[in-house]
Amino acid sequence: MPEDQHTGPSDEELRTLDAHWRAANYLSAGQIYLLGNPLLTEPLRPEHVKPRLLGHWGTSPGLNLVYTHLNRVIRARDLDALCIWGPGHGGPSILANTWLEGTYGEIYPDVGRDAAGMARLFRQFSFPGGVPSHVAPEVPGSIHEGGELGYSLAHAYGAAFDNPGLLVACVIGDGEAETGPLAGSWHSNKFLDPVHDGAVLPILHLNGYKIANPTVLARLPEPELEELLRGYGHDPITVSGDDPATVHRAMATAMDTALDRIAQAQRAAREDGVTERVRWPVIVLRTPKGWTGPAEVDGKPVENTWRSHQVPLPGVRENPEHLRQLEAWLKSYRPGELFDADGRPVDEVLACVPEGDRRLGATPHANGGLLLRELPLPDLDEFAVPVDKPGTTLHEPTRVLGDLLARVMKDTETRRDFRLVGPDETASNRLDAVFDASGKAWQERTLPVDEHLDRHGRVLEILSEHLCQGWLEGYLLTGRHGLFSCYEAFVHIVDSMVNQHIKWLRTSRELTWRAPIASLNYLLTSHVWRQDHNGFSHQDPGFVDHVLNKSPGVVRVYLPPDANTLLSVADHVLRSRDYVNVIVAGKQPCYDWLTMDAARAHCARGAGVWDWAGTENGGEPDVVLACAGDVPTQEVLAAAQLLRRHLPQLAFRVVNVVDIARLMPREEHPHGMPDFEYDGLFTTDKPVIFAYHGYPWLIHRLAYRRTGHQNLHVRGYKESGTTTTPFDMVVRNDLDRYRLVMDVIDRVPGLAVRAAAVRQRMADARTRHHEWIREHGTDMPEVAEWSWNP
Amino acid sequence: MPEDQHTGPSDEELRTLDAHWRAANYLSAGQIYLLGNPLLTEPLRPEHVKPRLLGHWGTSPGLNLVYTHLNRVIRARDLDALCIWGPGHGGPSILANTWLEGTYGEIYPDVGRDAAGMARLFRQFSFPGGVPSHVAPEVPGSIHEGGELGYSLAHAYGAAFDNPGLLVACVIGDGEAETGPLAGSWHSNKFLDPVHDGAVLPILHLNGYKIANPTVLARLPEPELEELLRGYGHDPITVSGDDPATVHRAMATAMDTALDRIAQAQRAAREDGVTERVRWPVIVLRTPKGWTGPAEVDGKPVENTWRSHQVPLPGVRENPEHLRQLEAWLKSYRPGELFDADGRPVDEVLACVPEGDRRLGATPHANGGLLLRELPLPDLDEFAVPVDKPGTTLHEPTRVLGDLLARVMKDTETRRDFRLVGPDETASNRLDAVFDASGKAWQERTLPVDEHLDRHGRVLEILSEHLCQGWLEGYLLTGRHGLFSCYEAFVHIVDSMVNQHIKWLRTSRELTWRAPIASLNYLLTSHVWRQDHNGFSHQDPGFVDHVLNKSPGVVRVYLPPDANTLLSVADHVLRSRDYVNVIVAGKQPCYDWLTMDAARAHCARGAGVWDWAGTENGGEPDVVLACAGDVPTQEVLAAAQLLRRHLPQLAFRVVNVVDIARLMPREEHPHGMPDFEYDGLFTTDKPVIFAYHGYPWLIHRLAYRRTGHQNLHVRGYKESGTTTTPFDMVVRNDLDRYRLVMDVIDRVPGLAVRAAAVRQRMADARTRHHEWIREHGTDMPEVAEWSWNP
Repeated sequence: MPEDQHTGPSDEELRTLDAHWRAANYLSAGQIYLLGNPLLTEPLRPEHVKPRLLGHWGTSPGLNLVYTHLNRVIRARDLDALCIWGPGHGGPSILANTWLEGTYGEIYPDVGRDAAGMARLFRQFSFPGGVPSHVAPEVPGSIHEGGELGYSLAHAYGAAFDNPGLLVACVIGDGEAETGPLAGSWHSNKFLDPVHDGAVLPILHLNGYKIANPTVLARLPEPELEELLRGYGHDPITVSGDDPATVHRAMATAMDTALDRIAQAQRAAREDGVTERVRWPVIVLRTPKGWTGPAEVDGKPVENTWRSHQVPLPGVRENPEHLRQLEAWLKSYRPGELFDADGRPVDEVLACVPEGDRRLGATPHANGGLLLRELPLPDLDEFAVPVDKPGTTLHEPTRVLGDLLARVMKDTETRRDFRLVGPDETASNRLDAVFDASGKAWQERTLPVDEHLDRHGRVLEILSEHLCQGWLEGYLLTGRHGLFSCYEAFVHIVDSMVNQHIKWLRTSRELTWRAPIASLNYLLTSHVWRQDHNGFSHQDPGFVDHVLNKSPGVVRVYLPPDANTLLSVADHVLRSRDYVNVIVAGKQPCYDWLTMDAARAHCARGAGVWDWAGTENGGEPDVVLACAGDVPTQEVLAAAQLLRRHLPQLAFRVVNVVDIARLMPREEHPHGMPDFEYDGLFTTDKPVIFAYHGYPWLIHRLAYRRTGHQNLHVRGYKESGTTTTPFDMVVRNDLDRYRLVMDVIDRVPGLAVRAAAVRQRMADARTRHHEWIREHGTDMPEVAEWSWNP
Repeated sequence: MPEDQHTGPSDEELRTLDAHWRAANYLSAGQIYLLGNPLLTEPLRPEHVKPRLLGHWGTSPGLNLVYTHLNRVIRARDLDALCIWGPGHGGPSILANTWLEGTYGEIYPDVGRDAAGMARLFRQFSFPGGVPSHVAPEVPGSIHEGGELGYSLAHAYGAAFDNPGLLVACVIGDGEAETGPLAGSWHSNKFLDPVHDGAVLPILHLNGYKIANPTVLARLPEPELEELLRGYGHDPITVSGDDPATVHRAMATAMDTALDRIAQAQRAAREDGVTERVRWPVIVLRTPKGWTGPAEVDGKPVENTWRSHQVPLPGVRENPEHLRQLEAWLKSYRPGELFDADGRPVDEVLACVPEGDRRLGATPHANGGLLLRELPLPDLDEFAVPVDKPGTTLHEPTRVLGDLLARVMKDTETRRDFRLVGPDETASNRLDAVFDASGKAWQERTLPVDEHLDRHGRVLEILSEHLCQGWLEGYLLTGRHGLFSCYEAFVHIVDSMVNQHIKWLRTSRELTWRAPIASLNYLLTSHVWRQDHNGFSHQDPGFVDHVLNKSPGVVRVYLPPDANTLLSVADHVLRSRDYVNVIVAGKQPCYDWLTMDAARAHCARGAGVWDWAGTENGGEPDVVLACAGDVPTQEVLAAAQLLRRHLPQLAFRVVNVVDIARLMPREEHPHGMPDFEYDGLFTTDKPVIFAYHGYPWLIHRLAYRRTGHQNLHVRGYKESGTTTTPFDMVVRNDLDRYRLVMDVIDRVPGLAVRAAAVRQRMADARTRHHEWIREHGTDMPEVAEWSWNP
């Protein structure tokens, strides 16, 4: 059919669409209210109503309308489709629809498509032991919770990347549209390749109100809204009204128009070689909030106002008038026409529902683990740096990793199931080797000076941590792999997003029907110790603390001290499933400490003694020098060298920790080491001087239950920073080699007197440092040129 | 002059503008490169060049252009103006301009307007012991760092609210424009009252590139960009070019046009009573990145590419050709014409510079403490709830606070220096009494159903935590007061913003010339324990952990257990200066524990024994029951009642903690209590069962140095949540009264055997709970109807 010339659905089809919609509306309201009498076969009495009324009605009729009409086009066009429900608090709607289409009962057989199942569907909703009120992981067909608003469109694009056959519809509420992340997400269309990616169809649902206010976009004059959407690069198609028949007709036509345009654009790019950026359609759906619900309650308007946001009739059990209104409302959907006596939806209701995996609740894209393939990972020895002697050669760890990632990128060239995302920092983070294998996605105009921009590129760069995170989440949740490289300080921008992803994974793991997906992997580089040039605003190592507060079954944190350990950790996390892995690693030249084999063994243990660095000889050491992170490791090794030189009788041990959760008790984290192992590493009674990458008290928080905890003395970042030299950063925070030696002297019993002269020497070196940098602006040669030479 | 009919500046004026611009460009480049020879009075040699080249050149010429032209209009129109420099990494530019206008030397007399001062200006930049490379607090005239991008426009609006005489210019880089928060900020204009607020003039600076990529907005076709900006509600005025004379002329005309339109809109609203929403102007400034810098380096284009982002000539000390290019570049500004032999800017350079406080570096709005007035705070007794007997009456604490805030709002009606911000949750958080005193700011269309919308309202609601935070920061930094009420879980959305604000305050406090500003106050409500209805996605108490990682001199956290303590805490934080105060308090009905007088005394101490609740009688207790937070307090009191009933011989103490930092050692936080006080409260050797609002390990992290730490047993939120009942939330996380009693039995030596039957009784109660909620969906009466009845 030629584009934009749709006659629309027949009256008969409209009747079936409306029947489906009414059924979904009935089931949505039923979930919020009913404990019993699900089919209203008897007059509604207070005891049929839940004692505690929870759930969001306001958005549900609109979501039901979209679900109905997506069903229609999926069926008509045999589409492979997924929908992101931005107003995911409208849980009743998606639960209702998946129940109607049968997927719900297939996954949860006791909630099948009959009266008993309907009764359970109603009762379980927002009920203890039942199901959450939002579109949580428990809901089939969902990859997006929608509790915390802002990320629906980013998730939609993430799902569409490298899924050329997929249509990703995305309902955006006008409340969510006010958030920064959503507002920024519109420009994702500049990164969507019409050849290798699927299509995203945003449906901006203007129901006019948030919890207590009108929305900004709903109150814009129509032409201003259209300018905005065109400015975002979309062609808007508006559907507006409150008469169901009219809206059904308009929505069906709008869907057909949008899908024709999408098909045409994809054909042009894929078959005709058109390279112009596509102006993708967007549907603007303007329908009343709480549509078809009570118009007025207690004399106040409810339908089409914010008052219908949650439960429009709040006092049903106590207030006979509310009870009467509820019954009238529910009966307005004419349930007797929609369900047979056994509670089964009649044929007319199901006429629009697609079959099998085409059903939105059954699409494997929303259970991405089903589609996931092992990532091809090369032999690390090919990328390892040679280490003849520890601490004498320098490499930039992230650059070494870049070579590995380039190989992965190359080896997935055809499969296209690996993406690297980052906020304009891939090259700055020294991962630019990947550009040899794939350019950066870019659909806008290019100029001759541009480098590595590619319509078909799989590296995603935009100056928005929110979009990087949202895209990658959508990509992973639909069964692919990826890595997010980010400045350490600014990953806090997505603190809240990672919370939500961790919660999603945590819950998903408890659902046997959800297959494990690839982990969300962060590479945090340009870290606190080497933000000496950008200064205080760029110094924040607290993301590790944030993540370690969350479900221990899901979160992992690694601090590889050199290039080969970074390779080993990266290999591990890229193979892992259902985790959030945080790697903190430097991009600046860093001494190589371990051979590839030693690195593998060390990372497998997660923490271990570096006996080549210490001076204990079989016996117990006098003191343990522990380190986690690349810069702390270097300072500890430099301190070790000073101790060897100045206090040759001292028996000290060097322990390096890569996997920070190993410090936790076993009961608190699966990686936690048993007490005997901890005691074996750190002793139970000797001083432990721990040089840690981030906030020092994190180590105490992890190790507070350990026997030797009172001997633990941690150095780390204590919010002292500015624009200065690299070594001055560690001096300011008392993490430098000289201070560590002083700590040893202060903590080892009896040493303070014996080693007073050495201690003074260390203090003098710190003074010398201060004078030198003020004079020269660089670090003094004894620091800048230091190497391991024990 | 009639609008839009400017003939533009005279040739003579253009010459002076260009001289000023060239001087600023010279000084910007000089800061990045020169250690000596600041006026190039001798041939440039390697030793004149810094050994470590740091700073951002790319954005500087554009910022310099804006500064020059703002100078011009401020002087010509005697404007009260402030500028937010979004690309705040362009520190050299703002430092150069404030030096030129004289404000820098007035604040830092050793960096005066002469050759010696210029030498120091150059040397100190990004040099150890010198000044940061960004527009940090050290820079006069700044309230915005610009290191973490995204918040400039929100800050600008915050500064403009309730400053009717102020023009806030805001330079937005095209990199920053890609961030979500910035993209969302454009709609701030729907909340700007042309009568009582000042004007915001956004200047979108399209220099085309980020660190390594072209920018999304710079590569849009011009008409698409204009649609976008009109869709945002602005009227764009474009200035484009790379010929300085042409750009100067166009920029002068654009500024005049924009300011005329602003003046006209304000006149229409203020004098003619026009109420239509204003379409404010926006200037689009399209100039090359690194403009006037080296065109090519080592055969690669640099000017007008991303390669000029930081240091365009990287090898000056080692590479004679780079040295030659640097000298030619610096000389291209003809410094000999700009500065006299003593390094003083010549008259022509300074012709455009305004006088006194009109200078952008001298405006008191950027040193808001100078303008700050004490907030009028009423007597708390007027708002206090009566408490004849603890734990028998219920109030919603935030509703009680709402009455106080309403009074503050009313008492600032004329002064207009207090704002309440929140993401659509003021009423949901039960602070709606404030609407009696002020409506919600709203410039869009209204409908008859709307409530409390007001063109002149001072309550700010938009569904964007980023905007709430950014607006409030801008408002506070310019010398006003406010409170941000937010769902506890979703305040993580602004984790990174609060980091930056804390860093700003921390640094500002060390600057004697910066006057203290009002604290940033959070009211976190709808908290983890009462998100039983929204479920797991809405449950996260980790913001407290995040904040407590930051500078202890700045951060304060309060957990008032009831309405009167909330009043006392709110009163305290609203009077405080230069802090970030986090209050966690419930909105649900909560027992009143303390009279107003007792609440005042308790909050002043921050932690104390509730002797009416415990059973010790002078002697040492057998066990301490500690609590922090409203729900934990209720559970501890309920546990206390059970202990009194079932174990009447047990001597236990109840300690309540309001100010959580009191647990920290004194050396680590100014509120930390001395050891003798801690030991006095918690004992040194008795078990302490601590019921805490958030993640339990936070308490260990705060108290790990205390003598009795090994006896501390903390219960709190451990990421176990779903949609369920309120009491089930505490049961799931082992924070319930029954579990606490079991903890006491398990921890008090010898009690396990003696009290085995009581323990079983408690376990049975938990079982009963599980059965009850599955059956009824509500909490069992013994819990739901519990009150303190010892």
